[in-house]
Amino acid sequence: MNYSIIRFVLGWIIKVEGIFFLLPLLTAIIYKETAGYSFLICAVASIVIGTVMSFKKPSDKSFYAREGFITVALGWIVMSLIGAVPFYISGEIPFYLDAFFEIVSGFTTTGASILSDVEALSKCMLIWRSFSHWLGGMGVLVFVLTILPLSGGESLHLLKAESPGPSVSKLVPKMRYTTGILYLIYTGMMLVEIIMLLLGGMPLFDTLCLSFGSAGTGGFAILNSGLATYTVYQQAVITVFMFLFGVNFSFYFLLLMKKGKDALSIEEVKWYFIIFAAVTLLITWNVSCSMGGNPLMNFHHAAFQVSSVMTTTGYSTLDFNLWPSFSKVLLVMIMFIGACAGSTGGGMKVSRILIYVKTIKKEFSTLLHPRSVKILKMDGKKIEHTVLRSANVFLCAYVIVYALSVVLISLDGFDFETNFTAVAATLNNIGPGLAGVGPTSNFGAYSPLSKLVLCFNMLAGRLELFPMLLLFIPSTWKRK
Amino acid sequence: MNYSIIRFVLGWIIKVEGIFFLLPLLTAIIYKETAGYSFLICAVASIVIGTVMSFKKPSDKSFYAREGFITVALGWIVMSLIGAVPFYISGEIPFYLDAFFEIVSGFTTTGASILSDVEALSKCMLIWRSFSHWLGGMGVLVFVLTILPLSGGESLHLLKAESPGPSVSKLVPKMRYTTGILYLIYTGMMLVEIIMLLLGGMPLFDTLCLSFGSAGTGGFAILNSGLATYTVYQQAVITVFMFLFGVNFSFYFLLLMKKGKDALSIEEVKWYFIIFAAVTLLITWNVSCSMGGNPLMNFHHAAFQVSSVMTTTGYSTLDFNLWPSFSKVLLVMIMFIGACAGSTGGGMKVSRILIYVKTIKKEFSTLLHPRSVKILKMDGKKIEHTVLRSANVFLCAYVIVYALSVVLISLDGFDFETNFTAVAATLNNIGPGLAGVGPTSNFGAYSPLSKLVLCFNMLAGRLELFPMLLLFIPSTWKRK
Repeated sequence: MNYSIIRFVLGWIIKVEGIFFLLPLLTAIIYKETAGYSFLICAVASIVIGTVMSFKKPSDKSFYAREGFITVALGWIVMSLIGAVPFYISGEIPFYLDAFFEIVSGFTTTGASILSDVEALSKCMLIWRSFSHWLGGMGVLVFVLTILPLSGGESLHLLKAESPGPSVSKLVPKMRYTTGILYLIYTGMMLVEIIMLLLGGMPLFDTLCLSFGSAGTGGFAILNSGLATYTVYQQAVITVFMFLFGVNFSFYFLLLMKKGKDALSIEEVKWYFIIFAAVTLLITWNVSCSMGGNPLMNFHHAAFQVSSVMTTTGYSTLDFNLWPSFSKVLLVMIMFIGACAGSTGGGMKVSRILIYVKTIKKEFSTLLHPRSVKILKMDGKKIEHTVLRSANVFLCAYVIVYALSVVLISLDGFDFETNFTAVAATLNNIGPGLAGVGPTSNFGAYSPLSKLVLCFNMLAGRLELFPMLLLFIPSTWKRK
Repeated sequence: MNYSIIRFVLGWIIKVEGIFFLLPLLTAIIYKETAGYSFLICAVASIVIGTVMSFKKPSDKSFYAREGFITVALGWIVMSLIGAVPFYISGEIPFYLDAFFEIVSGFTTTGASILSDVEALSKCMLIWRSFSHWLGGMGVLVFVLTILPLSGGESLHLLKAESPGPSVSKLVPKMRYTTGILYLIYTGMMLVEIIMLLLGGMPLFDTLCLSFGSAGTGGFAILNSGLATYTVYQQAVITVFMFLFGVNFSFYFLLLMKKGKDALSIEEVKWYFIIFAAVTLLITWNVSCSMGGNPLMNFHHAAFQVSSVMTTTGYSTLDFNLWPSFSKVLLVMIMFIGACAGSTGGGMKVSRILIYVKTIKKEFSTLLHPRSVKILKMDGKKIEHTVLRSANVFLCAYVIVYALSVVLISLDGFDFETNFTAVAATLNNIGPGLAGVGPTSNFGAYSPLSKLVLCFNMLAGRLELFPMLLLFIPSTWKRK
């Protein structure tokens, strides 16, 4: 393990986070909030510490996959440890572990909260929470890579470890150029969302917070009622943008390159849309049958909730915990499926599910015709063996992490539905679950041990398990 | 598809089932029960129909994997369709679908019941229910193969499709000889159990029923109170035997061959024991802390329930639905793990879990040292690629079947814990779940659609998914 380069990159991350503290600081100045001092202190401290750590360039330039994974895992943990400090020193979240839970939930774009009264937070804290979604959505290291002078190989290792989904296709040969374009699409789409919400008469502050959250597929709301009190137009705009941020960014990239035909032929995007539409219609039907009400409004709310859960955002316009069982189970299913690979959304990703289904179909034909050879294809290209293997290993690790997490948090004695969906909501980076952690409840009732387990789940979910799991393998830490 | 050979084997299965009806018939004669007539009718009808079907030898002798899977799937369905008839024509289970559910549950060694009052059944019905566990435990086709004059290749295809676990190791070169030895071990161990229970003062009838159930890891009880009213000695004997029937039969085979060292080095058996011991101790601790009581008796009940659930038997000596969350979640976990491959138990099997864990460990070392080559080993031998692939495909198919089943049965509107554990209890062939399908409840409240889904789950679980899934693939049915 090359510790000097890890120290160097961590220094940069801390420095950059210090700069990011300026946004909530500015907010505090505008709204004349004294809580702003905590951001000032943290910004100065972070910039100083970060500069000291990254001052001396690493003596040893060797940087392999191992260093990549560990840098990313440690980077996210350090970032969260620092990001939690303003909540704590301002006294707005009196326990540090709670503050840590809240910001891990922010950076990992989960949106699960330990707060029962969000409206009690000052504006600068609210915007920091939502801004953390935006930062975590595309990846903080991706951002750092666009400014940090590292070689292509190093960037690739870091990017691979931080990016969601089965594979990072090198969109353009130059890594820094790619990440630049991704950030451009990301910011551009968010600006359109902000404008459309402003046109609908939403206050600027709300617009910013909710757009940060939907762009990063986060899900922190700034009102205790969630998004229930916004107008139908505003909710509809957010439905559409949540959905759009769950699409594989290659889709937009291809559109930008004027390769519309290639974009439309991406299988994952097609199935993402089909699943979204099917589940929305099924829930509309189920809710209309069992609970009555205006079918059109039921459709509106179904589309919002499905878009929110499937993209793993986690906003809600109503308490879907009150929906009939069938609708709730459908929501749980799309919690696991999640959004597209290469989007800001979490979950297992539509493309992985496609790989699994294709594997099963291939097995059928192997069983029926043992001597025939069939090749698995995605978007017309052969799926490489390494991609298949890592998708399979992912599923094994996912199931085991899931099971162990449910066992550990069940020590607190809550019911099965609460525990099962608490892990679903954190490991898939969604936010709310059902029952005791439903949209109108929060995670505050869990014990410190369970909160740590759930924090681990959020980080493991965002970084696709392995960077976080490697931290626990002793051989990771050997010097050579 | 070679339909003539399938017809031929199905004929044999029906004929053999007709002969098996003689045991409940004899019981009816001993206890002078009029319900015995239904078994007489079914026995005669089955033997006649079976003889007619298997009279003409198949013209085409070609028999491949495809024929093997379909024969097994259809064989189990036909066997269940016929096995349900006595319940129905005697009027003791007034709806045919319920009777079908009950006998599918019997043959697949699940033990899930739709009856709220088991004691209302006549003795001949009770022994037929329990006997079906014994028949299904080792596999009906395995039995048929020991008497049916088929070539080795055909037997292998059938055996592969019916036997639980990742791989059927050919214990001895001659297939018929192998199946004979397996049935010998199976029957021998059951006889020892019967004797030990009789020594403990249990009535002969109960002894037979409960031994059939524990040998097949079934789980139908013959009292409404389950096994709660038996003595501690009797319960302890059953604990031990349930555990023993969950061990990989290769273990006993090796012991018989005086290869004790090889037997003790089977990794799966070692881990099966470790998991059993660990979960038993954790539950004893958890129950003693939260509910008090005598720790020794808590250990007794914990060991019974863990042995019952892990081997997927499903007997209960108390209502574990009242246990604290942690203990209940642990039970749910071992529902999924299940027993050893090559035993009569269900679930995913300990050896599959071992393969998954080994795969993850290998991935760690691949991530840390991308250029190193590591070979996965089990019991000192390399795990073949085909075994790995089929274990991975199994997990994918398992998760998808699981999810779709929960979605379908949730249409009935029951709570999440009930639906989730109803599928866990049927797909893993356990019997009772938690909440609405806990040990003191039954599956009678589900709608006909859900009962069909759960019947499918039981059959799919017993036959390890693929034979049942292939029934739904149109290309399976093509003539050539």
